[in-house]
Amino acid sequence: MAEEEEVILLDFWASMFGMRTRIALAEKGVKYDYREQDLWNKSSLLLQMNPVHKKIPVLIHNGKPVCESLFQLQYIDETWPDNNSLLPSDPTYKRALAKFWADFIDEKVNVAARRIWATKGEEQEASKELIEILKTLESELGDKDYFGVETFGYVDIALIGFYSWFGVYDKYGNINIESECPKLIAWAKRCLQRESVAKALPESEKVTTFISERRKKLELD
Amino acid sequence: MAEEEEVILLDFWASMFGMRTRIALAEKGVKYDYREQDLWNKSSLLLQMNPVHKKIPVLIHNGKPVCESLFQLQYIDETWPDNNSLLPSDPTYKRALAKFWADFIDEKVNVAARRIWATKGEEQEASKELIEILKTLESELGDKDYFGVETFGYVDIALIGFYSWFGVYDKYGNINIESECPKLIAWAKRCLQRESVAKALPESEKVTTFISERRKKLELD
Repeated sequence: MAEEEEVILLDFWASMFGMRTRIALAEKGVKYDYREQDLWNKSSLLLQMNPVHKKIPVLIHNGKPVCESLFQLQYIDETWPDNNSLLPSDPTYKRALAKFWADFIDEKVNVAARRIWATKGEEQEASKELIEILKTLESELGDKDYFGVETFGYVDIALIGFYSWFGVYDKYGNINIESECPKLIAWAKRCLQRESVAKALPESEKVTTFISERRKKLELD
Repeated sequence: MAEEEEVILLDFWASMFGMRTRIALAEKGVKYDYREQDLWNKSSLLLQMNPVHKKIPVLIHNGKPVCESLFQLQYIDETWPDNNSLLPSDPTYKRALAKFWADFIDEKVNVAARRIWATKGEEQEASKELIEILKTLESELGDKDYFGVETFGYVDIALIGFYSWFGVYDKYGNINIESECPKLIAWAKRCLQRESVAKALPESEKVTTFISERRKKLELD
């Protein structure tokens, strides 16, 4: 990496979206300045860098912001192409497929998962839905080690952060993801053997405590 | 194009997502077999090609399905790179920005727009929101001819299909997009001068009639 490169990540420790970007930067060996954000009192830097959505993570590369975690992964993959490809480089069809599944995770997993802990009265329906969605992903995984077929890649990075929240979904959705989706859990443990993942994911208990406090503030408990 | 190429598009005439893919294929000069789908009685081909979302458009290239219109645009751009680039080829940063705005259109424009005609009682709030969203896009456009700076491209294609629905939003949202967002209308008219766009977009009146009938079936009118 050239000396003049300046990479800053505006992030929040419990964000599964931020985890994606942290993992991708680690996979590429990119050094960066991590700046934890207060989401309930947003910094002027965050508002300036992501005026449209005002959301983390924001990747700032040489002063220019890249928003949305999946686009950050694509940006990182294109900007630092030498180490560990995240998206399949060939053929084009596999790239489209990887984008499809990452999008599925954003649209389906994220929406159902959030409904479990952030709503009142929708937990049962949402947790049933989440299990179905995770089973769809499990069947897409099949007997492969990773979603990226042989190597850890884009779809794995898109999904793995949610693993640190599984305790939250189990607790508030009254489910047991481990017994429902054993292959997915085996996959997650495989991913966690990578240093990039192990360092990016917080302890499950820390996330559960955080959400327990959030729910009190939201008057859900 | 090699003789063995087989390109099929499963689509529905009024879909602004399908319009994107039709425009992109036309821009690239790709010949394809257009197959209109009955969305209320889905074909076995559609269910087989998009088992997860069961949605059009589906682009089938040599037997393999590519789902989700924005990924189809990226796939088309990568598969037929010679004619008219859709995404900026360089630098990477501009590509990330184009993806950001297309995603904004999917997340914001589409959601607010649908709420205007497909719900009861949310029209006023949704139409106010839509105008704000369109103004954000207008300010991103600025004094440029196209969102893709000098040439018609990815973001233009992502947005232009909605133009054929503006009559629907005006009618059911009780708004006047033309007077609220004159620069956006000028941009749309500029886009419509392209053959690829003119051929892909249906007449506004045809869309309005279609939605009027849909609303009756949904018992909204």
